[in-house]
Amino acid sequence: QSDTNPPKWYDTFSLRGYIQVRYNAFQSNPDLGCDQCDKSWNGNSSFFIRRARLVFSGQIGKQVYFYFQPDFAASGSGGLNFGQLKDAYFDFGFDPENEYRIRVGQTKIPYGFENMQSSSVRLPLDRSDGINSAFTNERDLGAFFYWAPKEKRAMLKQLVDAGLKGSGDYGIFALGVFNGQTSNQLDQNNALHTVARVTWPMKIGNQIVEPSIQGYTGQFVMPKGQISSGVKTAADRSYLDQRVAATFVLYPKPFGIQAEFNVGKGPEFNKQTDSIEVQNLKGGYVMMSYLLRKDKQVIMPFVRAQYYDGGKKHELDARSYKVNDFEFGVEWQPVEHLELVGGYTFSKRRYEDYALPDNYQMGNLLRLQAQLSF
Amino acid sequence: QSDTNPPKWYDTFSLRGYIQVRYNAFQSNPDLGCDQCDKSWNGNSSFFIRRARLVFSGQIGKQVYFYFQPDFAASGSGGLNFGQLKDAYFDFGFDPENEYRIRVGQTKIPYGFENMQSSSVRLPLDRSDGINSAFTNERDLGAFFYWAPKEKRAMLKQLVDAGLKGSGDYGIFALGVFNGQTSNQLDQNNALHTVARVTWPMKIGNQIVEPSIQGYTGQFVMPKGQISSGVKTAADRSYLDQRVAATFVLYPKPFGIQAEFNVGKGPEFNKQTDSIEVQNLKGGYVMMSYLLRKDKQVIMPFVRAQYYDGGKKHELDARSYKVNDFEFGVEWQPVEHLELVGGYTFSKRRYEDYALPDNYQMGNLLRLQAQLSF
Amino acid sequence: QSDTNPPKWYDTFSLRGYIQVRYNAFQSNPDLGCDQCDKSWNGNSSFFIRRARLVFSGQIGKQVYFYFQPDFAASGSGGLNFGQLKDAYFDFGFDPENEYRIRVGQTKIPYGFENMQSSSVRLPLDRSDGINSAFTNERDLGAFFYWAPKEKRAMLKQLVDAGLKGSGDYGIFALGVFNGQTSNQLDQNNALHTVARVTWPMKIGNQIVEPSIQGYTGQFVMPKGQISSGVKTAADRSYLDQRVAATFVLYPKPFGIQAEFNVGKGPEFNKQTDSIEVQNLKGGYVMMSYLLRKDKQVIMPFVRAQYYDGGKKHELDARSYKVNDFEFGVEWQPVEHLELVGGYTFSKRRYEDYALPDNYQMGNLLRLQAQLSF
Repeated sequence: QSDTNPPKWYDTFSLRGYIQVRYNAFQSNPDLGCDQCDKSWNGNSSFFIRRARLVFSGQIGKQVYFYFQPDFAASGSGGLNFGQLKDAYFDFGFDPENEYRIRVGQTKIPYGFENMQSSSVRLPLDRSDGINSAFTNERDLGAFFYWAPKEKRAMLKQLVDAGLKGSGDYGIFALGVFNGQTSNQLDQNNALHTVARVTWPMKIGNQIVEPSIQGYTGQFVMPKGQISSGVKTAADRSYLDQRVAATFVLYPKPFGIQAEFNVGKGPEFNKQTDSIEVQNLKGGYVMMSYLLRKDKQVIMPFVRAQYYDGGKKHELDARSYKVNDFEFGVEWQPVEHLELVGGYTFSKRRYEDYALPDNYQMGNLLRLQAQLSF
Repeated sequence: QSDTNPPKWYDTFSLRGYIQVRYNAFQSNPDLGCDQCDKSWNGNSSFFIRRARLVFSGQIGKQVYFYFQPDFAASGSGGLNFGQLKDAYFDFGFDPENEYRIRVGQTKIPYGFENMQSSSVRLPLDRSDGINSAFTNERDLGAFFYWAPKEKRAMLKQLVDAGLKGSGDYGIFALGVFNGQTSNQLDQNNALHTVARVTWPMKIGNQIVEPSIQGYTGQFVMPKGQISSGVKTAADRSYLDQRVAATFVLYPKPFGIQAEFNVGKGPEFNKQTDSIEVQNLKGGYVMMSYLLRKDKQVIMPFVRAQYYDGGKKHELDARSYKVNDFEFGVEWQPVEHLELVGGYTFSKRRYEDYALPDNYQMGNLLRLQAQLSF
Repeated sequence: QSDTNPPKWYDTFSLRGYIQVRYNAFQSNPDLGCDQCDKSWNGNSSFFIRRARLVFSGQIGKQVYFYFQPDFAASGSGGLNFGQLKDAYFDFGFDPENEYRIRVGQTKIPYGFENMQSSSVRLPLDRSDGINSAFTNERDLGAFFYWAPKEKRAMLKQLVDAGLKGSGDYGIFALGVFNGQTSNQLDQNNALHTVARVTWPMKIGNQIVEPSIQGYTGQFVMPKGQISSGVKTAADRSYLDQRVAATFVLYPKPFGIQAEFNVGKGPEFNKQTDSIEVQNLKGGYVMMSYLLRKDKQVIMPFVRAQYYDGGKKHELDARSYKVNDFEFGVEWQPVEHLELVGGYTFSKRRYEDYALPDNYQMGNLLRLQAQLSF
């Protein structure tokens, strides 16, 4: 690029994306579902597009970065695979190294390592109920302050680039305010949610570990359309929504551990009183993995156990959940751009609302996923 | 590029876009709304994505230009931020300089300077009710003839590129036919709307002024789903839809004036008879601005007064409106790509339909917007 | 590209697209419709966007190819022109020439030359009822094996690139499994559909011909929302869905013939019993065309006769059809990127469901289309 020519559009930002196609090879119980995981948990052996995404992003100025990610796997009236926004945000840096940044727009909430980690790098097919029930789709609309020193920013980036399944760069310290009704939903009250997080990735000998703590608080308003007729609610349908989580990650060099646990309060259906009430919740997971490289191929077996006891505010009547799942699987990258995952899940789930006040389901699933990144 | 190689795809067209994130810092009256302006006028202090757009465009042949713009801020079933088309059109030029062009597709109707001006350059957050009530989303599907001599085309382009808040190039003379039900709607009758416009941007000393006149006529069919049960309509729900507008612009060098007014006829709810009838309408606005540059920063304070008395054909029962708004604000471009706007609005609005036949609302709003262009 | 630099994103894949704008100049019978063809068959002379597509694709590795195509002309709640996925698939090749490939994702089913041929190159505005009633939108989600020797792959590509209206490369031999409920729909049963196809394009003197045979079988489940109250169905709403088709193409050098016919079984409304039953179906078309080139312009007149007698599983009550259409038209490419088509159709259609058990419509249509490819 000569100095006299303005930069070309294709040099100022980049375009990439990925496609996840799943095949449910076996599901022992057609009544066992998991709305938040994957809407194709329905007993049918069939193909399903879980994610089909385009990412437009770039550091378009010394201080200005943007990220624009539509997904073409959203449900709409009359079918699947409509295009809907995942991310649309930009960062403004206050110093030459952008160690201090403000992010504005729809973006992931800095709460939960697993939530922030891209689905394109996560080992299990679905996020855990315990952590992901905080924010369906992991995102909301707001303003966030991030701080991370230069070397830590480089390290966070490297943990993704090197195939170590990092969470990406959501700062060493994060503090944000956001609507609180999750992404792609109109806010329903006059109060913002608040979130804070501290993380500290560090090298210990040949290993890298990253402990984090994070918490958020706010008032969640149960949307009218999400309450069965006959269910009693708080007068303004507004509920305390508050959690704190601890994370520990040992990056897979070659043996990895990833564990998170959170406790808090939130709306939950109470079948004794047919009402939605603020109740305690708790849950988390432990995952172990092993990273094998052979030539340019990567093979990563993993096991994960997860547990959740609490409500899901995004579901009908803030459905009451009790989940005990165990899963093992393997990820295989046979060539660049392509990744195959096979996983077998043992699932025990009690999830209850006004229409289904006694609903305990258990079953096994064998699922395969082919993912292409471009 | 050597002569023997075909051009690369990225040289034949370009990709850009912008994101508008709003924060409603204060709204004194939760019952004061403005559907056509911004669906987040609802009393809540919250964040909202008003526009999230990608623009694919290019002069792909000597005579052929195209423009393809999806927006990812459309409402759909089950949420916000679905992707929907704004523009999808192409121009075919009849002479080497493309002074004579035919445009075919979904595009802005050449009616109203403010309608044609991009939202990414407009000073106030929302278009005025008086002018914008002609066409919600400013667009329709049709065929349009544009004529502009070479030097005027360059001037229209320059008025945008130089940050003077121009309307873009919709010709010096425009004549078009279009469906008449506005963009992204199926046509409902066998008759097309017709529009014509003449504008004349010119330099007077150091200043640039642009007076324009424009008008359109057609039959608008009230969609069935937009009529309350109990409201009487014309037999075929078809109404005369006809307006003429005058525009005057003094571009901000550094002091600017932008003023438009239109009169016409269109469907409007009549609460005396509970019917939708053709009634007179009138409305417009005057805006004053001042352009300050400091280094690479731009600061533009502005004030706008607007008025509208008439129906809104795109709303329930062709809602009857009487609007008196006054607004002041400032736009600040701290760095390239980023633009911040703060505006304070005093709003008085009477808007009435079958369910709300006596609905006068007034209130004040403080709103902030951060816009990123990439 | 030097060896030390990674390839730029814009070198690894390409972006293109097209826009089809139609104008229904004349429709003699407003009650004559064809849902599967074009939702603007409704008697109104008006503009309509039939397709507005972006295609992201590329051979991103020696063995890995991807194709990602959203369309921004899908209907949604509240309007037209929402973005929805057409294709999202990738190919993995097993040999250096990718003669043996597996395709995974949402893609066209290799059934019917006309189905596989891109709408951007097809001569008539709409596909024929007989062949296209196999799969609305021509696509489904599954896994497909393709085999084609190198020289045949080159030939299939050349048949498109040279303007001879080829079908693209869906292999010489194809074998696939897929959900069976067509694209963008959740699968409804535990059984996959199976499809197979053999084609053999070959040069005979100066001419190129391509005969093919293809067939598929599976169980189609009538979706609940697509059955009128009062209509009787099979207990599980599941119906045999099975067809075999023969294709013959003489490519236009300069005179062309394209003919297809298929027979099979599928769900169809029976007005005698008010039930949906498996019934026989048959239908096809013959098209003749002539390719004229003058300088860089292309002119192709064509005539097509088509016939269909059977049900349409994708429509209300698996509507019963009997179609006899005749159409003539001309395609004109005045400059690169731009293509104009005018067609006149004589249509006789009986299509009957529970609400309209005696519905025979006939009429003539004059339609124009402008298509821009970028």
